[in-house]
Amino acid sequence: MPLTPDAKGVYPIAPTPFHADGRIDYASIDSMIDFYRSVGSTGMTVLGVMGEAPKLDGAEALEIATRFINRAEGLPVIIGVSAPGFAAMASLTRAVMDKGAAGVMIAPPNTLRTDDQITIYYRQASEAIGTDVPFVIQDFPQTFSVMMTPVVIRKIVQENPSCVMLKHEDWPGLEKISTLRGFQADGSMRPISILCGNGGLFLDFEVERGADGAMTGYAFPDMLCDVVRLQAEGQRDAAHDLFDAHLPLLRYEQQQGALGLAVRKYVMAKRGIIASDAQRKPGASLTAKAKAEVEYLLARLAKHDPRAGRTAR
Amino acid sequence: MPLTPDAKGVYPIAPTPFHADGRIDYASIDSMIDFYRSVGSTGMTVLGVMGEAPKLDGAEALEIATRFINRAEGLPVIIGVSAPGFAAMASLTRAVMDKGAAGVMIAPPNTLRTDDQITIYYRQASEAIGTDVPFVIQDFPQTFSVMMTPVVIRKIVQENPSCVMLKHEDWPGLEKISTLRGFQADGSMRPISILCGNGGLFLDFEVERGADGAMTGYAFPDMLCDVVRLQAEGQRDAAHDLFDAHLPLLRYEQQQGALGLAVRKYVMAKRGIIASDAQRKPGASLTAKAKAEVEYLLARLAKHDPRAGRTAR
Amino acid sequence: MPLTPDAKGVYPIAPTPFHADGRIDYASIDSMIDFYRSVGSTGMTVLGVMGEAPKLDGAEALEIATRFINRAEGLPVIIGVSAPGFAAMASLTRAVMDKGAAGVMIAPPNTLRTDDQITIYYRQASEAIGTDVPFVIQDFPQTFSVMMTPVVIRKIVQENPSCVMLKHEDWPGLEKISTLRGFQADGSMRPISILCGNGGLFLDFEVERGADGAMTGYAFPDMLCDVVRLQAEGQRDAAHDLFDAHLPLLRYEQQQGALGLAVRKYVMAKRGIIASDAQRKPGASLTAKAKAEVEYLLARLAKHDPRAGRTAR
Amino acid sequence: MPLTPDAKGVYPIAPTPFHADGRIDYASIDSMIDFYRSVGSTGMTVLGVMGEAPKLDGAEALEIATRFINRAEGLPVIIGVSAPGFAAMASLTRAVMDKGAAGVMIAPPNTLRTDDQITIYYRQASEAIGTDVPFVIQDFPQTFSVMMTPVVIRKIVQENPSCVMLKHEDWPGLEKISTLRGFQADGSMRPISILCGNGGLFLDFEVERGADGAMTGYAFPDMLCDVVRLQAEGQRDAAHDLFDAHLPLLRYEQQQGALGLAVRKYVMAKRGIIASDAQRKPGASLTAKAKAEVEYLLARLAKHDPRAGRTAR
Repeated sequence: MPLTPDAKGVYPIAPTPFHADGRIDYASIDSMIDFYRSVGSTGMTVLGVMGEAPKLDGAEALEIATRFINRAEGLPVIIGVSAPGFAAMASLTRAVMDKGAAGVMIAPPNTLRTDDQITIYYRQASEAIGTDVPFVIQDFPQTFSVMMTPVVIRKIVQENPSCVMLKHEDWPGLEKISTLRGFQADGSMRPISILCGNGGLFLDFEVERGADGAMTGYAFPDMLCDVVRLQAEGQRDAAHDLFDAHLPLLRYEQQQGALGLAVRKYVMAKRGIIASDAQRKPGASLTAKAKAEVEYLLARLAKHDPRAGRTAR
Repeated sequence: MPLTPDAKGVYPIAPTPFHADGRIDYASIDSMIDFYRSVGSTGMTVLGVMGEAPKLDGAEALEIATRFINRAEGLPVIIGVSAPGFAAMASLTRAVMDKGAAGVMIAPPNTLRTDDQITIYYRQASEAIGTDVPFVIQDFPQTFSVMMTPVVIRKIVQENPSCVMLKHEDWPGLEKISTLRGFQADGSMRPISILCGNGGLFLDFEVERGADGAMTGYAFPDMLCDVVRLQAEGQRDAAHDLFDAHLPLLRYEQQQGALGLAVRKYVMAKRGIIASDAQRKPGASLTAKAKAEVEYLLARLAKHDPRAGRTAR
Repeated sequence: MPLTPDAKGVYPIAPTPFHADGRIDYASIDSMIDFYRSVGSTGMTVLGVMGEAPKLDGAEALEIATRFINRAEGLPVIIGVSAPGFAAMASLTRAVMDKGAAGVMIAPPNTLRTDDQITIYYRQASEAIGTDVPFVIQDFPQTFSVMMTPVVIRKIVQENPSCVMLKHEDWPGLEKISTLRGFQADGSMRPISILCGNGGLFLDFEVERGADGAMTGYAFPDMLCDVVRLQAEGQRDAAHDLFDAHLPLLRYEQQQGALGLAVRKYVMAKRGIIASDAQRKPGASLTAKAKAEVEYLLARLAKHDPRAGRTAR
Repeated sequence: MPLTPDAKGVYPIAPTPFHADGRIDYASIDSMIDFYRSVGSTGMTVLGVMGEAPKLDGAEALEIATRFINRAEGLPVIIGVSAPGFAAMASLTRAVMDKGAAGVMIAPPNTLRTDDQITIYYRQASEAIGTDVPFVIQDFPQTFSVMMTPVVIRKIVQENPSCVMLKHEDWPGLEKISTLRGFQADGSMRPISILCGNGGLFLDFEVERGADGAMTGYAFPDMLCDVVRLQAEGQRDAAHDLFDAHLPLLRYEQQQGALGLAVRKYVMAKRGIIASDAQRKPGASLTAKAKAEVEYLLARLAKHDPRAGRTAR
């Protein structure tokens, strides 16, 4: 079931659950996948920036990907395969596609600068992994320092039939979505799926601009699913009400790097989605002050969304 | 009335108002200053990143600074004097201090990398402008690409008696505030004022961590003043309630570069604080979709904060 | 006598001579200009990266530029006007063009990334300074972090009739010259002058690839003039023989930043072209070891080029 | 035979030889190793920046490393193990140390900025690979964008007993060598080996400043060995004569990225050290003009060093 350009909904960016001693927590992988499914996720993404992928060796990465694919039972699983070189990218891609992955996500190396460098890179990457493998462009300039204009994205889409999705996390980025959808409307670009990342900070408006949903790892993927669904149903105000209630916490989770992940895992553990908020070394953990702030935010959120009050521990 | 390390409250980052044809709108400067004073601002900052300073020639910059200083009638005015070289920085500093500025703000050039380069830069800058001129460190890594650890900031403070304030806009940055206040508590750093920027995105918690207030340009400086005041009065929940009500719009305004400024000026013009949302070229303007989004956010905000419903046009 | 696209030869990048106490040394400016003329320079460039321009305030910069223009007596003088904003760029440009400058040189700000950002910047810059003012593109990615493909350069040239010259200092850059000359040959780009910088490190081959000459500050501009002339006369081996004899020293001078400038000024002072090797603060000076290395290199060079043995002190 | 802090001489950075169709050319690996030994190399380094390591998958990288280690028959082989994460770094390190590698080389990820980030990274890396594994710091700011002051290097050395060598390729870098040797002289840093990279562009003076030799990939490693030996014997002028004769070609090879490697492989193939100058895709190849330039440089060099005239094809 390969990924297609009409993918919609919410693909949570899955963290990698660890035990306190650094071992991979496979039971938590299972419970997390089950949770994603139960709240209406339409797929999921593994080994992304927030999946602590660089702390996994090759065998572990493949084992985790396989676990996800098998347990997802038909929900499409996208695997992050960004690598310093095409050889490692191609190896991992072949391995996960053999296991049943729906597609792969490729971030540009931060050495790319010119428009040509970017489009050539994606052409070469597609050739390296196989032009039959569906792939996702990750457009995240704040982290990767690579700036892709809408015209560059269009060129990648038009040159590579296997490009099926954009993970949109440019910021500011609302006009970019409108421009890309305009390219589709004027016939200059074939349709692709656009799922939004960036922690979900602008998701309320992104779907109104034409995005198909979210691909991000906020600790309440159920909220992301609800907002996307409400907007699809035309319940704009309800969507914003729910989103706004979560925004103080969502904003707090939006702290780049290991700290944001620490907040995310802390809340997910508290909700019982995973067993522990441990990060593999080198990682970050929350100070007592930060924990108290998160608890305060959860308590305030619980007044609007009872799910924030139901905790497993 | 030079700036001192016990500065508190809110120093709005003032935009530069222009007429539609690019001329400076001095009447709007006056009305803006009056507004800042009326809502309880304790100072203001001019010619910062969001003040379109690079679009002003030297004579204009000085004239604007002077207008602010005179009209502020005793409220301290900080002038951004960052420049590619110390000669221009020193010239502008001398000129504005002669006019009665309270101090100057200095951002590091984006070529600095090592700890030593940063501390040496501030030592040389202080010597260049005069060691009697109070100055503010601007710590804004997302924009300037210069990362200052708490230890580096402490070193700058200890080496330069005229360093009186930190404009804190690192992100994530809460722990940084706690660490710096810890340095003061353990006696390893003399006290300085910490005012927070970054659009105010974490202001609710920053003041709880020990910040003295805000220095940012959100289009509702009255809200910033209220939040700082409520927190000082111990009304934590009320502070968060007000902050959270504004967060959807504040978040929307937080779009780096000319677009964020376009939102800010649009709202300020709508509120009657300035006459026009024009930016001098090259600038950005809001699309119809973006304007509609801002209007929607204002309408929603008005349910919680009536000030959002009172518009001048 | 405005700069035109058929400019050829050597335009030395002039350092700014200072007295030991930091005052500008106008007598050395005069002697340096006279020296440049005497060795066959066809023009000169002032206030570039190596001219310590950021250490000059506005009045000083204009006074220096004027001194050069007047003393050059008809030799075209190009003024570096790169600035954080168009207002300052336009002010300085107007001032120096009024004084008789031949044109201005504009480096891109290091925030530019995409092809469009670069071409838009030069269009806006040209509008800001006046579309009648001849300008030079400075293409120096190692220092400015802005990468311009040949296609981007062509677009700038085609969109801006007043763009007359490329200061080429990309590295590696030989193929870029060939590609640009190919654009001219196939009629897709109008002819422009290409003068090469980068310390002259590849000048021997750059002129063979089609460059019109050099714009760099090596302490032996006489050698640069000779190499360009010998190549123009078809004396390839002689050109390389002379270049290779200088290469050890030229390579030694090629140390980015204040250190390279310290070597350059040291040798120029030793040759009597300027009176002192002082840099205005903050600057660099040579250690005893470095001075001994330069002396050793000069002594070795003197065996091949007697000019290296003739010193003024 | 683990790498120790008293390593000296020349460790060529070995390219990875490929057949024209992209397969690894193991016969050329063998002939290259034999050549390195025959000219007096004291070790070698594999899988560095110029070894096209990112184009190798994990199995290939290990196989190549093993081939080098076995064929080197006792000459120490250093393996580049830089990776986006510690897991992959540790896996490769364990594998190659088991095979008999002498040590590993670690470059900093280009996200590091502050002094603390750099020293913490090396501490964590050493823990990850095993504190008994000798490692080399690669200090190459132009490529990695990470700036290490001498004090930072000293801290890494003092904190990690298994740090035995610095691959020095900062530029300008002569004073850095002097400063580090000064730290050893004043007892504040234990002795380490310093081998210089950066294409050898300053090797003539680097050894005079206290470097122990070279670790770079210039196509005439025999020249590098001779220069280090001549300097060690006190034949300064002879060392410089030989170096200067090679400088025009060495400078030409010094073109960052795939182009410089293309020159290197072209000359090595011409000399019969490897069979083909093929790079694995994506790679670069020389244009006809560039090949003619290299041939011209070789012909000129042959007048001074007959080895440049002896070619295998």
